[in-house]
Amino acid sequence: MAEIRIGEYLFRRLKQMGIETAFGVPGDYELALLNYVEPAGLNWIGTPNELVGAYAADGYARLKGAAALVTTFGPGELSALCGLGGSFCEMVPVLHIVGYPSFAAQASGQILHHTLGDKSYDHYVRMSSELSCATAVLKDPSNATAEIDRVLNAMMYHSQPGYIGITEDVVKTLVPASSLDATMIHMALSSGTEDDRALAAIMAALEVSKNPIVIVDGGAGRSSWASHAIELVKALKSLHFNTVMGKGIVGEDDPLFAGCYAGVGSLPATSKAVEQSDCILWLGYMPSDFNTGMFTEDVKSSLVIDFQRFHITVGQKQFQARMNTRLSSFVKPGDMIVAETGTSQIGALATKTPQGVYYWTQAVWGSIGYAIGAAVGAAIAGKELGQYRRMIVFTGEGSLQLTVQAMSILNRHGVVPYVYTVERYFEGWDAAYNDVPEWDYSGLFRSFAPNLTTNTVKARSAAELDKLLSEESFQNATIPQCIDMTLDKYDAPAGLRAIFDFKKKMAGA
Amino acid sequence: MAEIRIGEYLFRRLKQMGIETAFGVPGDYELALLNYVEPAGLNWIGTPNELVGAYAADGYARLKGAAALVTTFGPGELSALCGLGGSFCEMVPVLHIVGYPSFAAQASGQILHHTLGDKSYDHYVRMSSELSCATAVLKDPSNATAEIDRVLNAMMYHSQPGYIGITEDVVKTLVPASSLDATMIHMALSSGTEDDRALAAIMAALEVSKNPIVIVDGGAGRSSWASHAIELVKALKSLHFNTVMGKGIVGEDDPLFAGCYAGVGSLPATSKAVEQSDCILWLGYMPSDFNTGMFTEDVKSSLVIDFQRFHITVGQKQFQARMNTRLSSFVKPGDMIVAETGTSQIGALATKTPQGVYYWTQAVWGSIGYAIGAAVGAAIAGKELGQYRRMIVFTGEGSLQLTVQAMSILNRHGVVPYVYTVERYFEGWDAAYNDVPEWDYSGLFRSFAPNLTTNTVKARSAAELDKLLSEESFQNATIPQCIDMTLDKYDAPAGLRAIFDFKKKMAGA
Repeated sequence: MAEIRIGEYLFRRLKQMGIETAFGVPGDYELALLNYVEPAGLNWIGTPNELVGAYAADGYARLKGAAALVTTFGPGELSALCGLGGSFCEMVPVLHIVGYPSFAAQASGQILHHTLGDKSYDHYVRMSSELSCATAVLKDPSNATAEIDRVLNAMMYHSQPGYIGITEDVVKTLVPASSLDATMIHMALSSGTEDDRALAAIMAALEVSKNPIVIVDGGAGRSSWASHAIELVKALKSLHFNTVMGKGIVGEDDPLFAGCYAGVGSLPATSKAVEQSDCILWLGYMPSDFNTGMFTEDVKSSLVIDFQRFHITVGQKQFQARMNTRLSSFVKPGDMIVAETGTSQIGALATKTPQGVYYWTQAVWGSIGYAIGAAVGAAIAGKELGQYRRMIVFTGEGSLQLTVQAMSILNRHGVVPYVYTVERYFEGWDAAYNDVPEWDYSGLFRSFAPNLTTNTVKARSAAELDKLLSEESFQNATIPQCIDMTLDKYDAPAGLRAIFDFKKKMAGA
Repeated sequence: MAEIRIGEYLFRRLKQMGIETAFGVPGDYELALLNYVEPAGLNWIGTPNELVGAYAADGYARLKGAAALVTTFGPGELSALCGLGGSFCEMVPVLHIVGYPSFAAQASGQILHHTLGDKSYDHYVRMSSELSCATAVLKDPSNATAEIDRVLNAMMYHSQPGYIGITEDVVKTLVPASSLDATMIHMALSSGTEDDRALAAIMAALEVSKNPIVIVDGGAGRSSWASHAIELVKALKSLHFNTVMGKGIVGEDDPLFAGCYAGVGSLPATSKAVEQSDCILWLGYMPSDFNTGMFTEDVKSSLVIDFQRFHITVGQKQFQARMNTRLSSFVKPGDMIVAETGTSQIGALATKTPQGVYYWTQAVWGSIGYAIGAAVGAAIAGKELGQYRRMIVFTGEGSLQLTVQAMSILNRHGVVPYVYTVERYFEGWDAAYNDVPEWDYSGLFRSFAPNLTTNTVKARSAAELDKLLSEESFQNATIPQCIDMTLDKYDAPAGLRAIFDFKKKMAGA
């Protein structure tokens, strides 16, 4: 009977799910495991640190449907947690695989490095359980493959991270190769129990509506939902909108697209059109602060049909019904754009992304430093999908402080970052704690990849930037481009100013 | 009655404990809090990311006795956890202060950014509780100062991190200024209950011993123990040793100093002298893998008198007795040396550190990327102590990948990093996953601080390095120095080779 090692089983399962790359940072407890990545047919992309690795996995999963991150017990896995928190709250399925010390070592009563010195091996999985829909630490080889499948199924079902800890000895244990033939039954969401009744209620609401609209939001998953959102918009032929979190799912070059809705942060015509509709089909409504112009949306919930991952609400009535989802990619040939949280994402409200451009931002988690890390994973996913053209990263100098070393991986795939300034628009306008050290971005861009030719251009005005963007040599560049833009200390997009002015007025009233 | 805000109370308490600097990264939930740092008389040192901030706080606390790190709810605090895990297991008191959303916002039922989208605010404090000796999220202004004192007391008592979450509204609540006059009664460790009986047992053992020795280890705390260790060594006048974790506490230029003990990883004369002793006074014994040459020490426990933080063991008998500790600094004028985990720390076994040189490494937690971050904090602590001369960082190219942006803060204080290669000496000798991207260190060193003059020297052989080290201009440099050393792909210190050869022999036997 053909047999394979459990380590290889794990990576072959990922391959079956369409994952072709594992991200991570090597560490000694995980080295045994890493020896099975390539035999299972996956590529290994080492990242400069675990946080960049977690962001890269998130970016990859948003395009390919799921991703894998491999770290080592203790310091390695803890360094990735901020990234996994983002994947959890933004519904991105990332499998966190952690290499554990062997049983023999754990049972010896000796104090191993990367422990807390207390001979306990459960601290970290408890911590990760707060940010995972399912966890397993594989201790018993006889149920290891079942446990792997359980976590993977839960991850795809909930569209959230899973955690698998695997000891050095379990990695090498043999299991029947035929285990790989078992179907992962829960992989696709099955239909809800009340689909028909929900459909009847939706049709009834649409029948009496004079101006129904669709808002494509991001609160119910992303890659597994996107194709349904596109189909729905096409079928209804009504005006459609998106949100900060939902931007980039449906093309904005469609004549029926009418803007990005974020309460008072929207363009005036957009908010007027949304707020006058008498029936809003809202796909994956996510009422978080950044996603709603700081809760300034003005829509009656009785007029909303809210499609969530596990239920649909029509007016005030909730049905256990679903938009059926499947693991399919919706990326079209063309650009990918990732916008950092804060100014960059608000500024993007007023830009139009044509169909086939893949745009996204972290609307809820809002972790600065995310964009350039996520771009690494998305660029690799795009290449695997055969649809990669350009990767455009909007970020800020404050954000680059956290994960600048991601440049060293990203530069191999081409990138056009913009450098903004943002935090001053909040409290502490002139406080010293909001100053960031001055860096030489051109020097960093070059020094992180000294074997590549790169190009850095400074832009000191909107006119300089416009000129640059219109140049054909820039548009079709074949080497990484960095635009180092200096804006006024207090520069901010109109949408951000509108939200803060509104909040200030409310606070004063 | 004079009143102060709770935010200011917190920072004034820290000031009373000798903390003069707060490290961290600003975020919007914490901005209200940061406005009280300077009014309380503390300096603010912003770090490029939270992990660097946590390492800097750890380095600072090792010199000054305690430190403070300030981050924002969610992404900010989670990004620091790896650093706090290290402080927990290496017994370094770091207070993690986290800025929480206001009560009003929490109670509104709205989804705020940086949450997991589930309206729960307890996930992160539960995670941190695994790495803290005490936690508090201040919800009730009436007991806030008592809660702050409770966490601070526990932190100093256990010599481990504490966690204080503080909402934007509690920060601004007024309390009587006189609260600051209350003594923090548990701040110093009180004497144990069995001191006399323990002392008698120790004296009895010493009386019959022919060749007692002292080993200064690091398992029972550091800055609060160091002065006692030095006194004991002076009083006994017997041979003394240290360990990987204990190195740097007692000067090695003493004629009675006889080496760093790490089992078969020690120099032969060192292991012989230790293993032939009939009475070993072991201060803070920490039997972890990295600290014991991978458990190759050869000492009978019946001959050991083990001084831990909360008890003393003589032979097999344990007493609830203590070396009394106090918050005192033991740093002498001169250099500070921080060695990265792995090759750098093992290589340092064979070097001699004179009295007054402050050396340390992470022997148990072993998180790569730590050294350059910790150097930031230690350099600042050294300046506050008026004892700063040079900061020497031994690190490796793999480690620099994780936290290279710390250069931008460190360069303001002078640094001499060495670039090694290490991981190949473990499994996966030639595996691609152990390759790190090639960076231009000279370019990075310069680009992270373009307003400073820095110097980078390449060394391609031991002879080139020796020549460089002997140059007076290099020894007394006034600008940051980077030595970019290229070693043979498989170069490793003799101690590391000895440990691996021994383990290989044992596995084959």
